[in-house]
Amino acid sequence: MANNLSGNLVIFQSGGPTAVINSSLVGVIEEAHRHSEIQEIYGAINGILGILNRRIVDLKREDPGVIAGLRKTPAAGLGSCRYKLRESDVEEVCAVLQDYGIRYLLVNGGNDSMDTANKILSFAEEIGYELRVIGIPKTIDNDLPFTDHCPGYGSIGRWLAIATMDAGRDTEAIHTTDRIKIIETMGRNSGWVAATTAMAKVTEMDAPHLIYFPEILLSIDKLLSDVENVCSRLGYAVIVVGEGLCGEDAKLLVESKRTIDTDGFGHRQPGGVGHYLAQIISDNLDLKSRSDKPGTIQRASILLSSPTDVEEAYRVGQMAVRYAVSGKSGCMVTLERSDSPSYEVEFGLVELGKVANQVRCLPAEFINESKNFVSGKFVDYFRPLLGGPLPRYERLRKYFVVRP
Amino acid sequence: MANNLSGNLVIFQSGGPTAVINSSLVGVIEEAHRHSEIQEIYGAINGILGILNRRIVDLKREDPGVIAGLRKTPAAGLGSCRYKLRESDVEEVCAVLQDYGIRYLLVNGGNDSMDTANKILSFAEEIGYELRVIGIPKTIDNDLPFTDHCPGYGSIGRWLAIATMDAGRDTEAIHTTDRIKIIETMGRNSGWVAATTAMAKVTEMDAPHLIYFPEILLSIDKLLSDVENVCSRLGYAVIVVGEGLCGEDAKLLVESKRTIDTDGFGHRQPGGVGHYLAQIISDNLDLKSRSDKPGTIQRASILLSSPTDVEEAYRVGQMAVRYAVSGKSGCMVTLERSDSPSYEVEFGLVELGKVANQVRCLPAEFINESKNFVSGKFVDYFRPLLGGPLPRYERLRKYFVVRP
Repeated sequence: MANNLSGNLVIFQSGGPTAVINSSLVGVIEEAHRHSEIQEIYGAINGILGILNRRIVDLKREDPGVIAGLRKTPAAGLGSCRYKLRESDVEEVCAVLQDYGIRYLLVNGGNDSMDTANKILSFAEEIGYELRVIGIPKTIDNDLPFTDHCPGYGSIGRWLAIATMDAGRDTEAIHTTDRIKIIETMGRNSGWVAATTAMAKVTEMDAPHLIYFPEILLSIDKLLSDVENVCSRLGYAVIVVGEGLCGEDAKLLVESKRTIDTDGFGHRQPGGVGHYLAQIISDNLDLKSRSDKPGTIQRASILLSSPTDVEEAYRVGQMAVRYAVSGKSGCMVTLERSDSPSYEVEFGLVELGKVANQVRCLPAEFINESKNFVSGKFVDYFRPLLGGPLPRYERLRKYFVVRP
Repeated sequence: MANNLSGNLVIFQSGGPTAVINSSLVGVIEEAHRHSEIQEIYGAINGILGILNRRIVDLKREDPGVIAGLRKTPAAGLGSCRYKLRESDVEEVCAVLQDYGIRYLLVNGGNDSMDTANKILSFAEEIGYELRVIGIPKTIDNDLPFTDHCPGYGSIGRWLAIATMDAGRDTEAIHTTDRIKIIETMGRNSGWVAATTAMAKVTEMDAPHLIYFPEILLSIDKLLSDVENVCSRLGYAVIVVGEGLCGEDAKLLVESKRTIDTDGFGHRQPGGVGHYLAQIISDNLDLKSRSDKPGTIQRASILLSSPTDVEEAYRVGQMAVRYAVSGKSGCMVTLERSDSPSYEVEFGLVELGKVANQVRCLPAEFINESKNFVSGKFVDYFRPLLGGPLPRYERLRKYFVVRP
């Protein structure tokens, strides 16, 4: 039977870490144990670099307690990388795969990684080496096409919703002096991450009051008038900005010009736009403005992760093994939301070539008409990904006492 | 009996919010209910401004569910302020206190607030108005003298220790490109807050690797050589800096020059030193450096708060009422660590005048010899304040597979 391919399996983790990428790893390891076709279970250290440099570890020898504990360990247990495969590397990668008897290659990453996976598979086909390559989606950016959402996204969203609730209460408390707070979220090319902060909002007083997305070119005048508007109503405003925010000239408002801050894929490091806009607001509106930039902390919290996300990350890992063993190759596992009224997901596949290097932006229907907040449709979309209700905070009713 | 003073009580919350300041408020309210001398229980909205502006609310009318829920609500439920009382205000404050029949004034804040409380008491004594004033310590900065520690400190420390564990794992995973991470913590004048991140560290690989404190003037050369040192050993480094870090000229490395960013007490807003130093490291060592600045999020998380801190915050509120009813005045409640081998606290009092405007820096014995990390003594001091063990993260043992 053509489907029956015996050999070793290797998995690598790639790109920016998430809270749940290790859950996918554990899903792969535990599922691989169940299939006799899979002999050894290997992990490559630091992504594709681990294959190139033959830094490959035997995951079967790991203590089961360590493997189980990985599900409660954020970031990438095998290490990750941001390395753009050169033409000349592909041959070497395939040589290493052959040397290690690897027939199953599982790539856990985002769109750049799916491109890498695709190139390796093409070369293997060219040289007639039978290899099954399956992509496991992972990105807090949630910008992979053909999947309802990506493991990692629910957890950064839950973290940010809680952080925005907390930071919002902080600003509300000290608004007699510190009136404006900007929270800078991740999201280089899309507003998916910034959008999740909207889940923190129940009443008008709750943060956030304004959200600006990388998809919408920012007019500083519009920002200032939005902020004045909120502030005149409430006395304060909490503003969320995605790090990849662009000005009206369609260029990043703030980006590093350093060569060292440009990765192998040509992506420049954004960051600092929250601080930059806080200064503009202070200068123009004479309102004291501060900015919070949780940075990598927002994507690496297992304690505040979404239980739904943790579970789904495990299952996409599991499914990747099942698909590979059943004969699939050249595809990435997708999550499909079923039509049932309660939230359910099913798994599917999409060709790697379709996903590679594609970015799915936040759809227009998930942004409000004023382009400064999400729509109700986004809230409906994201709610099940939160993995449970957010904490409930109280507010005093404030019965004022009048004395003559 | 001189101790028996009948009248109303008012409490206000002041300065920067914390995760647990509302626990002190609930401690005050629930204890005040138990004393017949206390008639009405009032809260002033936005600190001393609430008294000046007669924005005083009746806390007895609040739903008990709301009051209980406040213990799980971060930031200041009554609102806070940063307002330096003018000479001319004191008379007005005392007039309002008299109009509202207030005999018990409880001030929940830091050193500036204790100064405010002391001035009000002095004026009340001058005009012969019998008033009992008790300070309830609150500051994430932990810089109040005469108390072992301050409510709010344990929780920011627990949050930062966890965030540093998370961000450290993130850097470890992506260190093939992003080698350096700087985490900027709060702490305007002292390194107490920055020091707590050390609790994240178990092995040499764990973050943080270096901590720089506002108490120690920073030599950039020393920083660069420290970073190179760590990086040559591990391949990456996670560095914690307190926002109030000063250069060799004893001036803040980064501070806002805006008038609007200088509060009523003359304190300028620091912030941005992490980003600044990341740029210096990138430029001088050619190591890609990023910075995380969690900002107000670090001080406002109830979900990751220290249970010990939450409980102690409640109890200092309770004790403040008991002391006031028993006839004490002009004092702040202190926490005293008992000598027993297990952690226990007792409560005491210190005169407001001694605390007012004083800053307790991180003692030299809590800093290591190289001035770039805490000492073991600090770890012993802080451990019980964490309120329980930190999560345990796993690391793969990495059994490398060698193929010929």
